[in-house]
Amino acid sequence: MDAKTERIIYLDHAATSWPKPPEVIEAVRDAMVHDGANPGRGSHRMAVSAGRIVFEARKALAELFRIANPNDIALTFNTTIALNMAIKGLLQPGDHVVATAVEHNAVRRPLEYLKRTIGVKVTYVETDERGGLDPGRVREALLPNTKLVIVNHSSNLLGSILPVAEIGAMTRKRGIRLLVDAAQSAGILPIDVEAMGIDLLAFPGHKGLLGPQGTGGLYIHPEVNLEPILHGGTGSQSEAAEQPDMRPDRYESGTVNTPGLAGLAAGVRYILHETVENIYNKEWSLAQRLMEGLSAIGNVRVLGPEPGEPRTGIVSFIIGSADPSETAFILDRHYGIAVRAGFHCTPLAHGTAGTAATGAVRASVGHSTTEADVDALIAAAKEISRYY
Amino acid sequence: MDAKTERIIYLDHAATSWPKPPEVIEAVRDAMVHDGANPGRGSHRMAVSAGRIVFEARKALAELFRIANPNDIALTFNTTIALNMAIKGLLQPGDHVVATAVEHNAVRRPLEYLKRTIGVKVTYVETDERGGLDPGRVREALLPNTKLVIVNHSSNLLGSILPVAEIGAMTRKRGIRLLVDAAQSAGILPIDVEAMGIDLLAFPGHKGLLGPQGTGGLYIHPEVNLEPILHGGTGSQSEAAEQPDMRPDRYESGTVNTPGLAGLAAGVRYILHETVENIYNKEWSLAQRLMEGLSAIGNVRVLGPEPGEPRTGIVSFIIGSADPSETAFILDRHYGIAVRAGFHCTPLAHGTAGTAATGAVRASVGHSTTEADVDALIAAAKEISRYY
Repeated sequence: MDAKTERIIYLDHAATSWPKPPEVIEAVRDAMVHDGANPGRGSHRMAVSAGRIVFEARKALAELFRIANPNDIALTFNTTIALNMAIKGLLQPGDHVVATAVEHNAVRRPLEYLKRTIGVKVTYVETDERGGLDPGRVREALLPNTKLVIVNHSSNLLGSILPVAEIGAMTRKRGIRLLVDAAQSAGILPIDVEAMGIDLLAFPGHKGLLGPQGTGGLYIHPEVNLEPILHGGTGSQSEAAEQPDMRPDRYESGTVNTPGLAGLAAGVRYILHETVENIYNKEWSLAQRLMEGLSAIGNVRVLGPEPGEPRTGIVSFIIGSADPSETAFILDRHYGIAVRAGFHCTPLAHGTAGTAATGAVRASVGHSTTEADVDALIAAAKEISRYY
Repeated sequence: MDAKTERIIYLDHAATSWPKPPEVIEAVRDAMVHDGANPGRGSHRMAVSAGRIVFEARKALAELFRIANPNDIALTFNTTIALNMAIKGLLQPGDHVVATAVEHNAVRRPLEYLKRTIGVKVTYVETDERGGLDPGRVREALLPNTKLVIVNHSSNLLGSILPVAEIGAMTRKRGIRLLVDAAQSAGILPIDVEAMGIDLLAFPGHKGLLGPQGTGGLYIHPEVNLEPILHGGTGSQSEAAEQPDMRPDRYESGTVNTPGLAGLAAGVRYILHETVENIYNKEWSLAQRLMEGLSAIGNVRVLGPEPGEPRTGIVSFIIGSADPSETAFILDRHYGIAVRAGFHCTPLAHGTAGTAATGAVRASVGHSTTEADVDALIAAAKEISRYY
């Protein structure tokens, strides 16, 4: 089977969004053809125009997340690097961290590494079975040496939305830093770093922001100083043996992904034009339709928030006794529907949802999803359910 | 002035190559349009075809560098990340490192960081004024606790080629690891990791390999185990709290730059077809022409190897008493010639070359450079030289 000729019903937007808006693809191409120099490495006009592309991406992101100074955004290449920068750049021996049980491995593995190597202490706060988090449980977990609270804005398994603003109010009052993993929320849920008390915001470029893979970033509150985890050339203060203090250079060593960032800027502009509110409403409605359709099948279990509750476009489910990997395989081969099966890099969340032994099938809608796509998955699930 | 409409004579290939071959741009576009899923994150056919793109890039790189197992290549997003992975992943308190005075800040700054934080000791071995390195000086610098030797394959200021194979024979015999920074040599000089005794090879995708910015990698010898500096989701062994041991997953946390890697694979295939030997010969001839032309101007000082000696396409120079930044500015604005002025992230090399106070103008030829381009720079330099 050839992905190039056959129609695919793509319901894997939580892994990466597809297709990208045409202007994203054009922006990437245009940057490679016309603005191919290395930004910040030279003063000739092509290096300057490449630098402008990078600044445009930073500016659009600042507008989207209500960040006062675009230079407080470090452009990274994915969310994982951003999370590693935040976690390893802030925590020191003896520090305590509160995180949630629905964190991705990009949070959990850096934390486990710091536990093992420098003795950082971590408390994982449980959510309820549907991925909801009571902010009171975070408050109860705080210790005198708690330096950082980490919250997944939205579970990449359950689609639940966590109460970031409530937690942010609490951490601001106590002088504790708040890191938010916006892997599943950037471009889909409204984010206002100041209003929500977010000190560090890690986000991907290639999911809800509709940019290409190879892009992402980390917002760093102006009063938070992270020790960089990547040291190197910044095109500035070349004569200094130490990393420069200046932002964003301090956190952007080495050549950036200029064509990718051109695409990301186009993706963010697309979102600013469509508005996050409209995107959320559309994805929420599609998710409701999918949940209702799946729930109406006798032996399908749908995970995550109850119908009618706020959620993102992620709908995970299990058909009877069917192995989720097998379900995903059948959906792909027989129905041309792309979903993801397995543990989605979030084993603790599966423990919470009671699916630790099997994993789940995750369908996720996106900006390009139609009601017909959703209905096709429902019809396929119904057929498959007869055999399990 | 608009880079899009005016013809630019691009002589900044050492910063990034431009233009890219058309097949590179097509491959990036094609990957975004047709293979837009997240490789390794799902088993549906589009994730599989994205995974194939990533593997094709790995395979082409392995062929180019004579690497037996493509999975010993960790794909990164630039050379800086690769160098940080190698240096910080290998060195421990009490270790001694030998590096050269022509290392880039992407080597020097991580080393200085480790000096400051965990007490790693570093000896920088001097080159001669033209950037040549006597392997005997590396031998003299070795100590009983030397764990790592780091060599810049080719100086990004002087264009000199360092004797990697001789040093590799020496380090292999002594059980010391050798890290080579191929930022200026990958795709331009022949590299055979086994024959040259290279344990760790850091390389960019967007310079001599003609791929897009946002790509690069690190070859890790099968017997070298690095502690990862980036921990996170790998799409494999999701249930484990620790980073998996399996390669390349251990060193590739988070989503890779799939479209960029599609372009990189196309770039490397282009080079395999043209052959590194032909590319080197072409760039060497152009560099000779440029050196001769510049040297014939009375008050121009040309840095780096003597005429006739091996070198890459980098030719740095200083016109009389002219400030290099001003020279580069005039070349850009009045002649449409893109070069780079400054310190090029390599302050120690400037010390060696006697240009620490001023920096230099760096011109660098590439695969697309013509004799006419070189002649245009010579003519412009001649005119400028009359005023200084």
